[in-house]
Amino acid sequence: MALPSKKSAILVDGVVLNGPTTDRRAGEKFVEEASRLIMEEVILKATDVNEKVCEWQSPEQLKQLLDLEMRDTGESHDRLLQLCRDVIRFSVKTNHPRFFNQLYAGLDYYSLVGRFMTEALNPSVYTYEVSPVFLLVEEAVLKKMIEFIGWQEGDGIFNPGGSLSNMYAMNLARYKYCPDIKEKGLSGLPRLILFTSAECHYSVKKSASFLGIGTENVCFVETDGRGKMIPEELEKQVLQARKEGSTPFLVCATSGTTVLGSFDPLEEIADVCERQGLWLHVDASWGGSALMSRKHRKLLHGIHRADSVAWNPHKMLMAGIQCCALLVKDKSDLLKKCYSAEASYLFQQDKFYDVSYDTGDKSIQCSRRPDAFKFWMTWKALGTLGLEERVNRALALSRYLVDEIKKREGFKLLMEPEYANICFWYIPPSLRETEEGPEFWEKLNLTFPDPHKMDPTYKGSVLKLRFGTEREAEVAPAIKERMMKKGSLMLGYQQHRGKVNFFRQVVISPQVSREDMDFLLDEIDLLGRDM
Amino acid sequence: MALPSKKSAILVDGVVLNGPTTDRRAGEKFVEEASRLIMEEVILKATDVNEKVCEWQSPEQLKQLLDLEMRDTGESHDRLLQLCRDVIRFSVKTNHPRFFNQLYAGLDYYSLVGRFMTEALNPSVYTYEVSPVFLLVEEAVLKKMIEFIGWQEGDGIFNPGGSLSNMYAMNLARYKYCPDIKEKGLSGLPRLILFTSAECHYSVKKSASFLGIGTENVCFVETDGRGKMIPEELEKQVLQARKEGSTPFLVCATSGTTVLGSFDPLEEIADVCERQGLWLHVDASWGGSALMSRKHRKLLHGIHRADSVAWNPHKMLMAGIQCCALLVKDKSDLLKKCYSAEASYLFQQDKFYDVSYDTGDKSIQCSRRPDAFKFWMTWKALGTLGLEERVNRALALSRYLVDEIKKREGFKLLMEPEYANICFWYIPPSLRETEEGPEFWEKLNLTFPDPHKMDPTYKGSVLKLRFGTEREAEVAPAIKERMMKKGSLMLGYQQHRGKVNFFRQVVISPQVSREDMDFLLDEIDLLGRDM
Repeated sequence: MALPSKKSAILVDGVVLNGPTTDRRAGEKFVEEASRLIMEEVILKATDVNEKVCEWQSPEQLKQLLDLEMRDTGESHDRLLQLCRDVIRFSVKTNHPRFFNQLYAGLDYYSLVGRFMTEALNPSVYTYEVSPVFLLVEEAVLKKMIEFIGWQEGDGIFNPGGSLSNMYAMNLARYKYCPDIKEKGLSGLPRLILFTSAECHYSVKKSASFLGIGTENVCFVETDGRGKMIPEELEKQVLQARKEGSTPFLVCATSGTTVLGSFDPLEEIADVCERQGLWLHVDASWGGSALMSRKHRKLLHGIHRADSVAWNPHKMLMAGIQCCALLVKDKSDLLKKCYSAEASYLFQQDKFYDVSYDTGDKSIQCSRRPDAFKFWMTWKALGTLGLEERVNRALALSRYLVDEIKKREGFKLLMEPEYANICFWYIPPSLRETEEGPEFWEKLNLTFPDPHKMDPTYKGSVLKLRFGTEREAEVAPAIKERMMKKGSLMLGYQQHRGKVNFFRQVVISPQVSREDMDFLLDEIDLLGRDM
Repeated sequence: MALPSKKSAILVDGVVLNGPTTDRRAGEKFVEEASRLIMEEVILKATDVNEKVCEWQSPEQLKQLLDLEMRDTGESHDRLLQLCRDVIRFSVKTNHPRFFNQLYAGLDYYSLVGRFMTEALNPSVYTYEVSPVFLLVEEAVLKKMIEFIGWQEGDGIFNPGGSLSNMYAMNLARYKYCPDIKEKGLSGLPRLILFTSAECHYSVKKSASFLGIGTENVCFVETDGRGKMIPEELEKQVLQARKEGSTPFLVCATSGTTVLGSFDPLEEIADVCERQGLWLHVDASWGGSALMSRKHRKLLHGIHRADSVAWNPHKMLMAGIQCCALLVKDKSDLLKKCYSAEASYLFQQDKFYDVSYDTGDKSIQCSRRPDAFKFWMTWKALGTLGLEERVNRALALSRYLVDEIKKREGFKLLMEPEYANICFWYIPPSLRETEEGPEFWEKLNLTFPDPHKMDPTYKGSVLKLRFGTEREAEVAPAIKERMMKKGSLMLGYQQHRGKVNFFRQVVISPQVSREDMDFLLDEIDLLGRDM
């Protein structure tokens, strides 16, 4: 029986403290209505090939269209639902079968359910007492991924991004080389130097700068015509660096480079690392998923010899952004030793359970999301064979597209791809008669002042000048502009190592079919026909 | 009209490429069923005060209960739904009104809808072309947070965790001190040294180690009896470090320390920083939300003088894990200059829109989640006044609990709190007659071999020994074990700077009321009555 005193209102600092102040019923109703909206407008509509990939608005226009301002008083549920509708409408539909712009795409229903669950449960994965299920799931997923790399055992952690995984690995290699750096820092030490290919992800440079190593101490090893690191060049540079008094400690190979989708020759690189006593990290953020396919895992031949591997299931395996594992071969608890700070309020050693399950101290994060779980859901739903099928199909579709590009007039392949990145130029009709000389390439990629080197105040007007008369623009950017304004598809383009702007098409999702590949080429031709 | 050739099956590498292979209808049905389950089992049931906070299972038991293994073939939808049910059942209900274990708690319906939306849309926030809405929302939220800090202008970025925000700030301060470090690294430079309080978050140490500065170059400044940094001590240590040939570059003050909830005196610290020419970073990850309250923002008096601030709306403002902003006063594009790597495939300078909206190059991440959006949803829904009310109520409830602790026999306050951390001891009946001398404290915190220093193979048996005869255990850990096994509530305990194990109660959610505060004390007393 409640005491009578509990019934009277308790006021502290003018605030009534009796009972919860949240209107549960209204809140639950709002979640229900919004969930319906998400189901209809995103899960059903945004994945429909007949809908637009995006509804382009310039930043200035979009600011007018959206009511972004946060005010003193809140908005009604109806108004909020309208806001949600607007947000969905003007967002790019990365689930759309014709979104080919990044290294992620498509909708995986199982991982999505996993994500809805973890958002609702709102856990932080550091101690077993608050995240029992998600810690065990992470352990199980890491173990399975380690199996696919081909290690007998290992350790690992899920991080918010492959960039961070690469940083972790770099720090780990440094710690292994000289554990004292954790306490003493780099001051006064000889120059540590690391090696990666000229095609590596930009996070290697970011990592070197963040970790205090410095971008000048990243040695970019030359690649062959296919974008693969040349092992002989690597060894030459390692020896040269030693001669110059620097201290090599790490080689970062790439399995699936960002632009070309190239795979470094891991066996040969591992040989160099072994001879030279260097940590081998493999950035397989993009290409790691090929390990799921018995047909294609040979792309990563030798990966079992790596000391650490970064692998992002949120890319080809569609686990949802972000889902990125760093896997480490060492089993001497290196990850823990390197990263631990032993916070007494979180990692108490006098708990009543086995505190080796409190893995949070392996991380540079404190609160951490349960990113392994969504991948586990997909793996459970599809099985290893289902994941393998996805990889095989994406690569078969890539092969089909390459064959079509070769057949069609007006398209020119940059190189034979190894993976799901298909890089090609579109040659507009006006250039098809021109021979492939300097004039051809210059016309394909009209030069203009580098906006980077200009006074930023002039940037706007130069852009206007360029696009005021569209025919003066480069081919790929102009087509990209037209496709985005039409909303028919999205794919990326870039200049790359002396090559003028080309398209990079990325095939991932099982919602995509050869009809979409045909559409892609038809559409680019349609958009560029008058150029 | 489709060409006839498009109708025949196209096979590449044995894979049929016609049409999508995903069964959309089945997938959509699964999402619908799972969403219903989440609504019932998490949103409705897990927030119910009459339900358990957790259903404790040891790691070994839980592995038996959950079917964690990933197999070659996938599972049926029915089986998957059962798995989801199990995952929810054995997960800790961080939304439960009696989950007080961490610096986050409760359920915010609006932020949850924002999270469901972004999971469904699956964006990555780096370029305007793929994340138009979420980039504008991030800009708007940062601008508003900057206003609350009291800066005229500024810059910022959302990061996966306050720890990372602190790292960003440390790197930024280092870059500001010596931009060359980005390229050249720390090798050969004098020892950089930074200052923080002895009560700081453990991420300051982790940051120093990760960034190559070294944990020994973190100077821990002594605090007063309330856990606040002593500015005179700070200045003394800065001068001392200079005398010893080190190079001070940063002071990291804390607004809302993790254990005690203390606020460093920012005005006085800013004076020291100004005199000594040091970057002032304020880790307001926990305490920053007090800025929303006109009554309580005085706790952060002087914060406008900081050069950078870390502030996590996922804590007291309940935005969902993670939602963490780093805010920077500088407007000379320092963040961009310090972090950029100018990846040509992502941050093309020849795009058809204003590329200053492509803010991804400010980040050490490549793909990045739209964490600002969920906070924006809550702010839109509640308004500034609604957020203020939440802070005021949480702090009024804290005040109420403190008064109750003072009144009750068997409870002893560690110190008067400034914020929502209430630290206290429970004194079991058998100790209530003992005078507060060494014997009293020893009995409250029975000593036992440090499991850290022992052979790990013995760890299990020692833990069993301790808990086989429960009366030999420390009071707080033993009560914690009992409350978790009962599932009635969850709150944290820790030893701290010579103080024996005490409870730390954290009040956040508007679902909590004074009845829960009363319950908390009643329940601890009930659980510890026989000790």
